[in-house]
Amino acid sequence: MQVVMGVDPGAANLGFGIVRVEGNQMVALDGGVVETSAGIPMERRLETIHRELSELIAWHEPRAMAIEEVYFGKNVRSAMKVGQACGVAMLAAAQRGVDCHSYTPQAIKMAVCGSGAAGKEQVQQMVGVLLGLPEPPSPDHAADALAVAICHGGGSGHRQAVAAAGSKSAGSPVRTRVAG
Amino acid sequence: MQVVMGVDPGAANLGFGIVRVEGNQMVALDGGVVETSAGIPMERRLETIHRELSELIAWHEPRAMAIEEVYFGKNVRSAMKVGQACGVAMLAAAQRGVDCHSYTPQAIKMAVCGSGAAGKEQVQQMVGVLLGLPEPPSPDHAADALAVAICHGGGSGHRQAVAAAGSKSAGSPVRTRVAG
Repeated sequence: MQVVMGVDPGAANLGFGIVRVEGNQMVALDGGVVETSAGIPMERRLETIHRELSELIAWHEPRAMAIEEVYFGKNVRSAMKVGQACGVAMLAAAQRGVDCHSYTPQAIKMAVCGSGAAGKEQVQQMVGVLLGLPEPPSPDHAADALAVAICHGGGSGHRQAVAAAGSKSAGSPVRTRVAG
Repeated sequence: MQVVMGVDPGAANLGFGIVRVEGNQMVALDGGVVETSAGIPMERRLETIHRELSELIAWHEPRAMAIEEVYFGKNVRSAMKVGQACGVAMLAAAQRGVDCHSYTPQAIKMAVCGSGAAGKEQVQQMVGVLLGLPEPPSPDHAADALAVAICHGGGSGHRQAVAAAGSKSAGSPVRTRVAG
């Protein structure tokens, strides 16, 4: 048994998803988004992100943090903020002895859907199936965070096993954390 | 009187420089580089940077952190690491109630040398003059960090005043912190 915390880094909306891997089964323990307002100084937003993730790590005690590697878009300033948010997430992990692992979006799609070119909806659909959720998780950033946690936990190798077992564990509701 | 902490963000070598501004005079209180090895997982390196900067902030109690804005080079992966290092520096500031301010390299050169196109050696030379150091500070990253602190503290407006006062306060030796 191991617990994996997935992170979809972002400044305004940072997705998190916590998955327990037991043999061939995966269960969603938690998932959501840390939202911070663009109207607040960036250092305060980073403090909020760090605090929220530190609490989640203390609560769930994951063995690993799996992070989606982010590529730079056209907006250099917003890309820098994503890097900063990613940095404080990794710091929260290191401060509790949790190792970090990065995965490209292609690797995550491949692990979850069996194709590096899978679309966003397909990923959400498969995340729901693999975790035995009654419906695909939302919002997007939480689903993406659960996807990278699944990727680290073993990916679609679990799909067959889950389908065979006919598992329908409900998991936890995916929620949004709105914070200053 | 106010104390300003300058930061030249980087993953392998993060420069810091602490300057006390008193009226028309500026004095270097501390300066150096937090070095971390590329052979260590990035989350551990971020932990080291955060811890070292937190200690410096606790000791010197700066009113502000001034950060050099970094532009993305050709290497996207290393740029992401600079963003992560910058994020944990800003977090260390926020956790002690210190506000952060960013300055472009051009603005810093303009403030220190009176020209946004000033060369690296010219900046180092002027940092030494403005802080009354016996010689230009080194290494480069420490000098750059002192330069952004000077920029926040008022910049070359102090040059005339310092020259008039004939100040030759020695400041503190600039040193290198080598850490795991």
